[in-house]
Amino acid sequence: MRRLRLGMVGGGEGAFIGAVHRMAARLDGRWELVAGNLSSTPDKAARSAEAIGLARSYGSFEEMAREEAAQEDGIDAVSIVTPNHIHVPVAKAFLAAGIHVICDKPLTTDLETAQAFAAECAGYDAQFFLTHNYTGSPLVRQARQMVSEGMLGNIRLVHAEYLQDWLSRPADPENVQAAWRTDPARTGGAGAIGDIGTHAYNLACFVMGETASQLAADLQSFVGGREVDDNANILLRFGSGSRGSIFASQVATGTENGLKLRIHGDKGGLFWAQENPNELIFTPMGGVEQRITRGGAGAMSAAEAVTRIPAGHPEGYLEAFGTLYREIADHLSGADSAGLETVPGIAEAVAGMAFIDACQRSSKADAAWCDLTS
Amino acid sequence: MRRLRLGMVGGGEGAFIGAVHRMAARLDGRWELVAGNLSSTPDKAARSAEAIGLARSYGSFEEMAREEAAQEDGIDAVSIVTPNHIHVPVAKAFLAAGIHVICDKPLTTDLETAQAFAAECAGYDAQFFLTHNYTGSPLVRQARQMVSEGMLGNIRLVHAEYLQDWLSRPADPENVQAAWRTDPARTGGAGAIGDIGTHAYNLACFVMGETASQLAADLQSFVGGREVDDNANILLRFGSGSRGSIFASQVATGTENGLKLRIHGDKGGLFWAQENPNELIFTPMGGVEQRITRGGAGAMSAAEAVTRIPAGHPEGYLEAFGTLYREIADHLSGADSAGLETVPGIAEAVAGMAFIDACQRSSKADAAWCDLTS
Amino acid sequence: MRRLRLGMVGGGEGAFIGAVHRMAARLDGRWELVAGNLSSTPDKAARSAEAIGLARSYGSFEEMAREEAAQEDGIDAVSIVTPNHIHVPVAKAFLAAGIHVICDKPLTTDLETAQAFAAECAGYDAQFFLTHNYTGSPLVRQARQMVSEGMLGNIRLVHAEYLQDWLSRPADPENVQAAWRTDPARTGGAGAIGDIGTHAYNLACFVMGETASQLAADLQSFVGGREVDDNANILLRFGSGSRGSIFASQVATGTENGLKLRIHGDKGGLFWAQENPNELIFTPMGGVEQRITRGGAGAMSAAEAVTRIPAGHPEGYLEAFGTLYREIADHLSGADSAGLETVPGIAEAVAGMAFIDACQRSSKADAAWCDLTS
Amino acid sequence: MRRLRLGMVGGGEGAFIGAVHRMAARLDGRWELVAGNLSSTPDKAARSAEAIGLARSYGSFEEMAREEAAQEDGIDAVSIVTPNHIHVPVAKAFLAAGIHVICDKPLTTDLETAQAFAAECAGYDAQFFLTHNYTGSPLVRQARQMVSEGMLGNIRLVHAEYLQDWLSRPADPENVQAAWRTDPARTGGAGAIGDIGTHAYNLACFVMGETASQLAADLQSFVGGREVDDNANILLRFGSGSRGSIFASQVATGTENGLKLRIHGDKGGLFWAQENPNELIFTPMGGVEQRITRGGAGAMSAAEAVTRIPAGHPEGYLEAFGTLYREIADHLSGADSAGLETVPGIAEAVAGMAFIDACQRSSKADAAWCDLTS
Repeated sequence: MRRLRLGMVGGGEGAFIGAVHRMAARLDGRWELVAGNLSSTPDKAARSAEAIGLARSYGSFEEMAREEAAQEDGIDAVSIVTPNHIHVPVAKAFLAAGIHVICDKPLTTDLETAQAFAAECAGYDAQFFLTHNYTGSPLVRQARQMVSEGMLGNIRLVHAEYLQDWLSRPADPENVQAAWRTDPARTGGAGAIGDIGTHAYNLACFVMGETASQLAADLQSFVGGREVDDNANILLRFGSGSRGSIFASQVATGTENGLKLRIHGDKGGLFWAQENPNELIFTPMGGVEQRITRGGAGAMSAAEAVTRIPAGHPEGYLEAFGTLYREIADHLSGADSAGLETVPGIAEAVAGMAFIDACQRSSKADAAWCDLTS
Repeated sequence: MRRLRLGMVGGGEGAFIGAVHRMAARLDGRWELVAGNLSSTPDKAARSAEAIGLARSYGSFEEMAREEAAQEDGIDAVSIVTPNHIHVPVAKAFLAAGIHVICDKPLTTDLETAQAFAAECAGYDAQFFLTHNYTGSPLVRQARQMVSEGMLGNIRLVHAEYLQDWLSRPADPENVQAAWRTDPARTGGAGAIGDIGTHAYNLACFVMGETASQLAADLQSFVGGREVDDNANILLRFGSGSRGSIFASQVATGTENGLKLRIHGDKGGLFWAQENPNELIFTPMGGVEQRITRGGAGAMSAAEAVTRIPAGHPEGYLEAFGTLYREIADHLSGADSAGLETVPGIAEAVAGMAFIDACQRSSKADAAWCDLTS
Repeated sequence: MRRLRLGMVGGGEGAFIGAVHRMAARLDGRWELVAGNLSSTPDKAARSAEAIGLARSYGSFEEMAREEAAQEDGIDAVSIVTPNHIHVPVAKAFLAAGIHVICDKPLTTDLETAQAFAAECAGYDAQFFLTHNYTGSPLVRQARQMVSEGMLGNIRLVHAEYLQDWLSRPADPENVQAAWRTDPARTGGAGAIGDIGTHAYNLACFVMGETASQLAADLQSFVGGREVDDNANILLRFGSGSRGSIFASQVATGTENGLKLRIHGDKGGLFWAQENPNELIFTPMGGVEQRITRGGAGAMSAAEAVTRIPAGHPEGYLEAFGTLYREIADHLSGADSAGLETVPGIAEAVAGMAFIDACQRSSKADAAWCDLTS
Repeated sequence: MRRLRLGMVGGGEGAFIGAVHRMAARLDGRWELVAGNLSSTPDKAARSAEAIGLARSYGSFEEMAREEAAQEDGIDAVSIVTPNHIHVPVAKAFLAAGIHVICDKPLTTDLETAQAFAAECAGYDAQFFLTHNYTGSPLVRQARQMVSEGMLGNIRLVHAEYLQDWLSRPADPENVQAAWRTDPARTGGAGAIGDIGTHAYNLACFVMGETASQLAADLQSFVGGREVDDNANILLRFGSGSRGSIFASQVATGTENGLKLRIHGDKGGLFWAQENPNELIFTPMGGVEQRITRGGAGAMSAAEAVTRIPAGHPEGYLEAFGTLYREIADHLSGADSAGLETVPGIAEAVAGMAFIDACQRSSKADAAWCDLTS
């Protein structure tokens, strides 16, 4: 199989997630980064490209889409790692040019834009992927398989949370990361719910195999002057009868990237935490708690399929992220028909925006229950 | 100091919490159990008394209150460890007879009864104590002190939960514990919220130094045919601006007695779990996570005051429970004026019923916000 | 069953272990402390007795043994909680007077004294018990049962350690605990190996059902001027072919009472730590790691027999200690023939001294292998 | 900086560590794998090269060294990932051809060969690196810095262990990994001590900044018919006065890759475990235990220098391994003079063989103390 050619929009100087995408893409040797428009500021774009030794640098994403589509060795796919409000325009440009899109989450600033984009997507040959990276973790895959195969029975409760504390104080304007994440113009108004709440919600739904039907959300902006939410306490209801919650916070002092998932069914319970992703705690009803390890005796096929190294040698954040890149490569190369089942795409992108939208509507209505419509 | 004389109502054959109260009372050598009406069934009362070598056994609590009050060496206090609906009548009988009362929680079946009882209590010389036993744990005391002294700054979030799984299936009618706890007539209609939700709520309030002003509760009875709630997902608001949650569940497969407390303030965060009560995790804002151990270098005065053995030698559930008994003895003996600040009494008893009442009202209103009024 | 009458020698002002024995004896309501010679200094003995409300206080242990033996309601047993060098003279006085002895460990200062005492013991009607308290922990009992029933197969490795750091600096002469523990005259020359190494060794042997045949010990006194060992790194060999190690340290900075046991057999592995004694980690060969909890689904008969409260409610150090007192009471009351199998006695006392003796001989021979002879 | 060209010897079908080296080399984008002799069997070499899309495949390492040295775009360095007995001949061939060598550990089969090779190395311009990969972990770097800067004071104790259980049963001859690791001809006679004991020993020395002066080793082959050791219990002495131990086992049922390090100095203690490498437990003498996280508030310069992603996003085994590859690239590119201080080289290679040699001599002498000579 030939190595696929990758482009990148965003991810220049001072960015975090762009570098992550580049490492993730490199890990399994399936992609070669060859082109980019790493910043919307042409100077910075050129400087950033040089700093990472990028062969082809463009001053705008429109030019990049046009030029790459025209080249014989043009990129196969583009990674979009800009602030949220730019995702959709960039995605459209590349999809229209026949170039596949790998987009960071959340998809965009509002549900309406998302729905319109989703409708357009159906008309493109090129495909759209969304990097809800935690779903690439082997034991998240296993949790999904266990639920799907009925090992937990009927799911009664699902509690997901994503707690950080890095925005506990007013954001430093020099901090590029913090600046755009607390700017309603660039996020679409969502703070914690968009940046990390969508991850927690996506994780819960990925493992449950079901999206929520209703939620009640109590959003806060604890830090004075902040214009987006920095904390969200959310209750969930699912059509199947399951109940649950999402906590998303960027002011939970003492936490780092505390993404955790707990599921309780009438046949068993599960616990997984991304900060220690190599173990999955499973307790069959009435039985003894088991610590299933990635690569260990209790690992099932869905986990094994995305495991690189033996049990006891930790894989981490980049490995899970890299798994999405590998599966996308496999899928685009025609090597693996399973890719589309596990890699999030347009449906998950819209579901995430529906979650944000419902949170905002509910919170304005004093945490009244709101339907999630997508 | 002379050893105080204790009586007990409830706690006969098959009971759990009565034996716990007896061990807790014995641990520090401040109480001698001398009298009891261990069951409302006279035969069983006599048999149970004989089994534990109890000197004076009575066929009814009314007789016991009358007789003990009349004796020169009558009991100083009575422990009430019956099902909830009997607490208040028993308490009144003893308080009226001038005998102090140590009552298990929750106080009673409904808020109205609780309020009326509280009003009566003001007229008695004898005192009323409520065994929210977890507040006797040294590091819970420390958490309260840390909040009170401002070490966490302004509290933004408080999440408490108490998760069990022992009622995940329909209760075995032979199981005395399960039977009365799932019988609305004996609990007053509350299930998980009364049995364990009140503990979680009390713990949060004890550490915060504040009760909640509003809550929104989504209650469920997941097990078919169950007439009381077996799961509650609750959002909280406090007058001070803090937000939070209570999860109480008896169907959370894979949990045992998962009482946990997390508090996030603008100067620091705390985590404590009763299943491993000898450590308190504290992270000052912007600093390194610290594991404060009971008896260790970071232990503060409130913890030290109720610590029996050195750091690294675990104290547990009975020790915390015993601390309440010791503090009550100290207080009744006039030896320690501090007792009334830390041992829960009638105010906490009513606050617990107000919590249950608000949960039930909110859940009937589809989890609308309800005021807690006490 | 009547409550047994207990006496105590040692355990006066400033002592630690005496108070522990008193709490342990009280917990299950089987003992009443009625007499004592709490200090070898008569003044201090009287003051200490008054402080704890002790009915009968004596100025010397000889007088106490004589007087108690003569009284109709004299003590059934005496707890000896003095420094090591006094254990044997006191024990002899009481055994000779027909009073049972419950003695703290290690038995004495040297193996020869231990062996001579053991020979004498055979001639007494009264019985001798040794408080290796950790063996009272429910999951230690379970570990022993699992080994005994072959669930681990042939044992290949046993690693035990007991790490503390409270003597990392020169002992404060005001600290009564530290003073006698670092005084060779009162310990017999052993430091860490006697105070805590014997616990680790006893724990390993109790669970294995076998004492070691040979050891190689590298002892150190890291703190300047210290005349007893404060660290010991020891390799073990067992007659059955098992190999292992004991680490005992009082200068292991960052540890509190880190008593841990790991056993690896050809059918499974076990891990237990006294600082979190309510879980036992078991991994069957080729299977998934299990977290067996005290009182939980995986608890076996030996654990259940000494469990007081439900799974998830932690029992701790005092509870395990109290179990020995309860079993001794049961045994002396004729109620339980099993007591002698689980409560350590003279054989374990001599085995502990043989361990100390071999450590000292080996260390003097530059950690050469030495036989353990008892 | 141009991407360096890498070759590989070994790492064909069925191999484990070759694939790890390839992922590690790719992660940071500093290397391009362009040539290989992936197996000593020419057919298998060709098949393996094709499977991973390798441009230039050779039938023998001699040919590869010759040809690559002659090419203008020949490899800058070669990774040697064969069984131990082949390391040195391959290394010599490439070093002699002026190509840098990145060799897996242990260096070779015996100390004499190692010493002779070290002497030869001094005569080459090309450099030799050894992949003791765990030393690339950020918090291992921090531990070394903390020791070096005196934050632990004088080191009293260092306990390292590496426990596995995958060889608890006789090796499956079909398992390529197990087969050569238990074949004395290919390992030089060392089993667990060579494969994982050298990692534990290297880790201890790397952090201590000192190699051991003496050891006493008790080696076993628990599995019937095994010709190499599968367990080693080892005591250590250092010239500085520190004492310690190494446990290496491949029959420790219930463990996976349990590499752990504990250091106790007179000013503080440290704990690190490779299965959860993103935290370092530090307790200053007399202070509260701190959990330092990779990327978190307590991270120091040595850790920050090799950290890719924020605190709370776990890095793992491959990231640490990749750090060595990145540092070697930086060093060879002249970009970083610090590389040689942290990446193990010939001195560490010989020290590892001296460790193995001393273990074998000591064990034959019934665990007598032996000097480590290198």
